[in-house]
Amino acid sequence: MKKKLFHDFKELMDKLELKNGMVVSFHHHLRNGDFILNMVMKEIAERGYKDITVVASSIFPCHKELVSLMENGVVTNIYAGYISGPVAQAISDGKLKNPAIMHTHGGRARIMETKEVVIDFAFMGAPTCDEYGNINGIEGKSACGALGYAHTDAEWAKVVVAITDNLVPYPNKVIEINQTHIDYVLNIEAIGDPNGIVSGTTQITKNPIGLKIASMTSKFIKDSGYFKDGMSFQTGAGGISLAVAAEMKNMMKRDEIKGSFACGGITGYIVDMYKEGLFKTLFDVQCFDLEAIKSAKENSDHITMSASMYANFNNKGAVVDMLDIVILGATEMDVEFNVNVTTGSDGVIMGGSGGHSDTAAGSKLCIIVSQLVNSRISVLKDKVTTITTPGNTVDILVTEHGIAINPLRVDLIEKFKNSKLPIKTMEELKIIAEKLTGKPKNIEFEEKIVAIVQYRDGTTIDNVRQIKR
Amino acid sequence: MKKKLFHDFKELMDKLELKNGMVVSFHHHLRNGDFILNMVMKEIAERGYKDITVVASSIFPCHKELVSLMENGVVTNIYAGYISGPVAQAISDGKLKNPAIMHTHGGRARIMETKEVVIDFAFMGAPTCDEYGNINGIEGKSACGALGYAHTDAEWAKVVVAITDNLVPYPNKVIEINQTHIDYVLNIEAIGDPNGIVSGTTQITKNPIGLKIASMTSKFIKDSGYFKDGMSFQTGAGGISLAVAAEMKNMMKRDEIKGSFACGGITGYIVDMYKEGLFKTLFDVQCFDLEAIKSAKENSDHITMSASMYANFNNKGAVVDMLDIVILGATEMDVEFNVNVTTGSDGVIMGGSGGHSDTAAGSKLCIIVSQLVNSRISVLKDKVTTITTPGNTVDILVTEHGIAINPLRVDLIEKFKNSKLPIKTMEELKIIAEKLTGKPKNIEFEEKIVAIVQYRDGTTIDNVRQIKR
Repeated sequence: MKKKLFHDFKELMDKLELKNGMVVSFHHHLRNGDFILNMVMKEIAERGYKDITVVASSIFPCHKELVSLMENGVVTNIYAGYISGPVAQAISDGKLKNPAIMHTHGGRARIMETKEVVIDFAFMGAPTCDEYGNINGIEGKSACGALGYAHTDAEWAKVVVAITDNLVPYPNKVIEINQTHIDYVLNIEAIGDPNGIVSGTTQITKNPIGLKIASMTSKFIKDSGYFKDGMSFQTGAGGISLAVAAEMKNMMKRDEIKGSFACGGITGYIVDMYKEGLFKTLFDVQCFDLEAIKSAKENSDHITMSASMYANFNNKGAVVDMLDIVILGATEMDVEFNVNVTTGSDGVIMGGSGGHSDTAAGSKLCIIVSQLVNSRISVLKDKVTTITTPGNTVDILVTEHGIAINPLRVDLIEKFKNSKLPIKTMEELKIIAEKLTGKPKNIEFEEKIVAIVQYRDGTTIDNVRQIKR
Repeated sequence: MKKKLFHDFKELMDKLELKNGMVVSFHHHLRNGDFILNMVMKEIAERGYKDITVVASSIFPCHKELVSLMENGVVTNIYAGYISGPVAQAISDGKLKNPAIMHTHGGRARIMETKEVVIDFAFMGAPTCDEYGNINGIEGKSACGALGYAHTDAEWAKVVVAITDNLVPYPNKVIEINQTHIDYVLNIEAIGDPNGIVSGTTQITKNPIGLKIASMTSKFIKDSGYFKDGMSFQTGAGGISLAVAAEMKNMMKRDEIKGSFACGGITGYIVDMYKEGLFKTLFDVQCFDLEAIKSAKENSDHITMSASMYANFNNKGAVVDMLDIVILGATEMDVEFNVNVTTGSDGVIMGGSGGHSDTAAGSKLCIIVSQLVNSRISVLKDKVTTITTPGNTVDILVTEHGIAINPLRVDLIEKFKNSKLPIKTMEELKIIAEKLTGKPKNIEFEEKIVAIVQYRDGTTIDNVRQIKR
């Protein structure tokens, strides 16, 4: 039997053959409560290593300590599917030596499976773990639910360290990632702050405009031809998206529609729909709230899946390939239906694709829900600042001023030509918006490319440039 | 969405880029009821392909059609962990062009993971499957339970064909092997004969000599120091081994011992122990009977595992590494404690390691149970005909005439020096046996090597030679 268990972080770090230029990975299931990335990177910096590549499935405000490590050359490369907070700002300010690679959630699995990126050390938050490395995320004081983004690291990293604050006797009762992938188990006091692990964002919007958009969206879905027995559905955790879920729930119950599966990041709203018998399976890559975590623990039809199974373009078939309807948000759109969720209206990085372009491409009906005008800013631009998701994979935009159907979807345009819904062209919506906001001022950038937006197939779909101060 | 589903076998075979010299794989979970290997190999032969390598986790009497394919050069290489019946006989008769490679169950995972053998096409019996290739073995008319030996093929074969006779709507409710690994799904009338899938061998011996051996074994275990809370246990499906399980059950209940896990091929006897609360987890690589299949379906603590997780020497930690006690059988042993379970007393192949040498090496206490003399044949030889499991991994032999402890286990010899159990040396047991049977006649072999016995680490531990007629 191999000795895997350590109780002292520094002793374990002594054991690892760390080196300059190494590639280290982290998952983001502990979200804005994560202690692990900071703990590990601080130690690597203190030991004097330089030129580190950080492959983190997402980066949150809590990871602000990375900024000084970028400034002093400890961290020179970053791969992530989503970056928000001070690290995003610092990248936009040109503080990272090389451009950040911003991939999709499925793309992250792809780059590891194809060995485009080889992880030297994966440091893996493990809410519950036994001494031989059988892990689950559904139990323990730092429970986060599904560990979908960690699977690929476990399978492909050269050395995998599971870091837990809930060491249980062998064998762990529920095993999501198993011992065959784990080199070391580190038992520490706390891997995260429970208040930050489960974010507070999963609430239905109370904004009447948002509720109006949700209502229009559900009416559109009902008439779209996709609202039928066996349908599958995904919605994000944004306030309008969740309001659509609430509308869908009522509509499915009223019309006695039984869906097939719901997928993606799972929220309590989706769990409710499952409990009402509206979906037979939940395919869960990450839990957004406590209700979802509880359900992952209790319901055998609540199946946790890897990011590869969820959304990888390059495997033998992802769940998004079977998805009928997805509801997504947007920071910006243009008349070509291109979507930006990577940079904000100021041109600064504030997010990233995550599963956005994966689900848009996989689904049969991709609906973007957004206020047309918010705080005197229009969602519609001549050209989006950054293309996250290409317009040819996006079908519909629903706003408070009308619904635009992508001209590529002649079938839907035909279907809705006599609809009572306010169907408009993107050009018409853009005119309405510009009357309200005026023409937006162009954002000014430096020449330096600070991030490459990588589409799910690995091609570069856009670049993000340094912000001009 | 990729189109995976076919309803016509020949249409699917037309689609596959078959070629001479290809490597095709099969799992043995349908055991002696399997229809798939014969169906596929017959079609390959009819299409005129030659020089095929068959990588079958085990080969049973039902696969006798392979014999003529060996004779006419369609099949020239075989890899298997266990071979019995006409194919075994034909190999011993020199009918396979190249030596068969007889690996362990864990070794099979190793050779695929290291790419020592690359599978071109895996043809995978899938008792229940959806159109996108989510598979389980616990439901359907051909239910066989855990699919442990199929995992590695799914992960590593270039092309994977799931063959089912129970196609269910997407998504399959229980998923053991998922869609990301499956290229094609073939829906046919029947993948196996239920009477052959669950073998009739899992019965406790009624032979009083066998029961005496079981009783001695359990007494030995009780005093060994390994009989305590948290202990883990594996036993095979042989009659004496099962009798040991029955004794252990009573002993654990009486002494209020709570074990940790039981593993391996699971039988109803082990399920009973789990139900009594004697083990908290069952790690299951294959189900031996209907009770085990039922339990795999009903109990969340009955965890199905891959052969790699079970027993692979070459991953980051297998379940056998954590195993305390294993009870195994033997065809032959010698005074060095080497065990043969590959060839019979006539020198003809009749089995193979399966998990024998994996569990012997991993466990803390490896006990061989066997009649010393059976039908006037002694289990003890000067030298075993074939070394399957090396003596330095075997601790104990229990026979009706006494118990031998491996001299390497000075700790156990010390512990049992005042025991009331009939502790003897191997030499003493051998003298007793030879008094009863006389010196056995040597088996005569030709020069030709017909099979290579590959130890779990990939080294050659012995060769099997062609039988002299």
